[in-house]
Amino acid sequence: MAQMHGLEESLAEIKRGSDELIVEQEMIERLRRGALRVKAGFDPTAPDLHLGHTVLLNKMRQFQLLGHHVIFLIGDFTGMIGDPTGKNATRLPLSPEQIQQNAGTYKEQVFKILDPDRTEIAYNSAWFGPMAAADLIKLAARYTVARMLERDDFGKRYRGGLPIAVHEFLYPLVQGYDSVALRADVELGGTDQKFNLLVGRELQKDYGQQPQCVLTMPLLEGLDGVNKMSKSLGNYVGINEPPGEIFGKLMSITDDLMWRYIDLLSFEPLPIVQRWRTDVAAGANPRDVKVTFAKEIVARFHGHQAAQHAEADFRARFAQGQIPEQMPEHVIPLERDELALTQILRATGLTSSSSEAMRMIDQGGVRVDGERVSDKALALRRGGPFVLQVGKRKFARVTLT
Amino acid sequence: MAQMHGLEESLAEIKRGSDELIVEQEMIERLRRGALRVKAGFDPTAPDLHLGHTVLLNKMRQFQLLGHHVIFLIGDFTGMIGDPTGKNATRLPLSPEQIQQNAGTYKEQVFKILDPDRTEIAYNSAWFGPMAAADLIKLAARYTVARMLERDDFGKRYRGGLPIAVHEFLYPLVQGYDSVALRADVELGGTDQKFNLLVGRELQKDYGQQPQCVLTMPLLEGLDGVNKMSKSLGNYVGINEPPGEIFGKLMSITDDLMWRYIDLLSFEPLPIVQRWRTDVAAGANPRDVKVTFAKEIVARFHGHQAAQHAEADFRARFAQGQIPEQMPEHVIPLERDELALTQILRATGLTSSSSEAMRMIDQGGVRVDGERVSDKALALRRGGPFVLQVGKRKFARVTLT
Repeated sequence: MAQMHGLEESLAEIKRGSDELIVEQEMIERLRRGALRVKAGFDPTAPDLHLGHTVLLNKMRQFQLLGHHVIFLIGDFTGMIGDPTGKNATRLPLSPEQIQQNAGTYKEQVFKILDPDRTEIAYNSAWFGPMAAADLIKLAARYTVARMLERDDFGKRYRGGLPIAVHEFLYPLVQGYDSVALRADVELGGTDQKFNLLVGRELQKDYGQQPQCVLTMPLLEGLDGVNKMSKSLGNYVGINEPPGEIFGKLMSITDDLMWRYIDLLSFEPLPIVQRWRTDVAAGANPRDVKVTFAKEIVARFHGHQAAQHAEADFRARFAQGQIPEQMPEHVIPLERDELALTQILRATGLTSSSSEAMRMIDQGGVRVDGERVSDKALALRRGGPFVLQVGKRKFARVTLT
Repeated sequence: MAQMHGLEESLAEIKRGSDELIVEQEMIERLRRGALRVKAGFDPTAPDLHLGHTVLLNKMRQFQLLGHHVIFLIGDFTGMIGDPTGKNATRLPLSPEQIQQNAGTYKEQVFKILDPDRTEIAYNSAWFGPMAAADLIKLAARYTVARMLERDDFGKRYRGGLPIAVHEFLYPLVQGYDSVALRADVELGGTDQKFNLLVGRELQKDYGQQPQCVLTMPLLEGLDGVNKMSKSLGNYVGINEPPGEIFGKLMSITDDLMWRYIDLLSFEPLPIVQRWRTDVAAGANPRDVKVTFAKEIVARFHGHQAAQHAEADFRARFAQGQIPEQMPEHVIPLERDELALTQILRATGLTSSSSEAMRMIDQGGVRVDGERVSDKALALRRGGPFVLQVGKRKFARVTLT
């Protein structure tokens, strides 16, 4: 396969959307030699993927399309240790059964993007599980404390008087050694992983291997266009969400964010994306590009038919005038994870009081995202934007943060 | 045995000569409860002991005399790792055979001081050998980077830009965990070990044990009275040296240093030592105390008869007027480990030239420490002081540093 692509074309695809390639000249030499072993590491926890995670998966897919061997590495060794300081309750140690279960959930999701026949799933417990304490000490001897403290977050925490447990210095070495064990030619990761990826380069040198190329990908902003996409911030598009949900969320983003998403998420060839930009610059409605892009993403996870339906549903609502394009926008900061709909209705002025809100729900006059609400106790979770409607004419678009 | 001693008397013996006891009140409570497990750790390398090492061994012996259980811990686990950075050529990894051989040499020497029946020899490879890398990570999670950098030498090296390899942060934890594995009640060590001993206290708390008491002993100065006693500085008294050598070296120290040595090395009861001090203050010759002390030390390693002989030999030489008490003193700094006797004779002015020195040796007119020299190529190694004699009347006392 690799032979089917020109070197320059391959390199352009590899670099597309990326943040940094270390070292480009080494990558060119490797590409000349043939198929590469491309590694990307994933936490064994919470495998509920959103579009932010897929930036890396898309890049792995690109390598597959260019004929390279892709390794989806599950960091189960450290996952099974958890956070032994016990200070972080969210990082309990995982059992081997949980890891297997999470791995299964991962596979279901990632194979919507990756080619299963060209993906090796690896677990770093395979080499770290049998490793003796003595060998870990030898590994730890290969890096200095000062260089660890050069890692941005370590340095900040140390200077800020925040604790760093000694084992945290071992984790970059564990990740780096994974590259040695896998004989990786390339490692992919988010820009926040750059330090760890470079540790891999150095350890490979120490172990007599040619150091891997490092390709970092930007972190995808969430629907708010500001923060990193994350479940806990509620600004995400989950790849397992229903088609209408994905479509609607993507249609809600700003035009600026749309171009960013297209750069990092679309598989359309670069010349086509370029033409979209030219058209919009010349006056075309960016909403049409947004629809095309939203359909591409829905189709990726739910198929083409679902994408067609999602578009049709979306257009129908606007075309029938049920929901106006322009309406008041509200952002409500939450103290908890959710807020009662009745309180939201009062806060946005759609009703004058909570009791009026309840009455309107009883009368069937309240809709959220076009769906009639019958449960007066309904609460909306952090996220949105939600389109709220009271009666025929009162609308508001509400984001809960 | 413990019952035979009053609590106060026991505590006074335990504290005798020590630098710091952490925490005295805890020690008192433990002593009330009965026999203690007393741990002291030793490197598995270079078991060629000198009096400096015996300060700790003497303290262990004192605990034995008070009826406690003493554990001589050989740190063979880290010894078998060596210094994996490879920067320190003197710390090659030791094989299990070498460790066993060194342990044998240790035993030969330490049982001149310790009671073999009340000494447990332990090896930390017993628990660290089978330990998995994952468990070492859990151990490393129990301490922070900031606290490690509070250790004096780590802090200095970090601030001074000198490298600290990450595995060096693991070694205090290894030593501390030894106390957990041994369920130590007390750990003994030099003042330079205080940080590591305190790590043991904390880890024991973490593992649900009562934290060990820590007793630090001062580092013994060498014959020069300035530097720590050490083989490489040549200012040591080896416990395997011949009786006359030990006796002579101890007779050469200053009166001030004599009291220091007595505090840290003599087994004489405290009231007797106090009487010596009073006598000397009242005008008695400190040389008589020095003789008594030197005999005690020679007897410890070679028996009473050898001590009597050493004293008799020493007195004979002075009594026969062969060697005056007062003579010129010289300190010669060496560039190498040794210097030719002929050069020393010239440098001290005992002969006017090297060729005169050779002639005097040929004529049998040169003595070193009372022994006639016949080898013109003789070189003296770093150390001393040596008493040099040319002819009947020319003397000099020379120290090579």
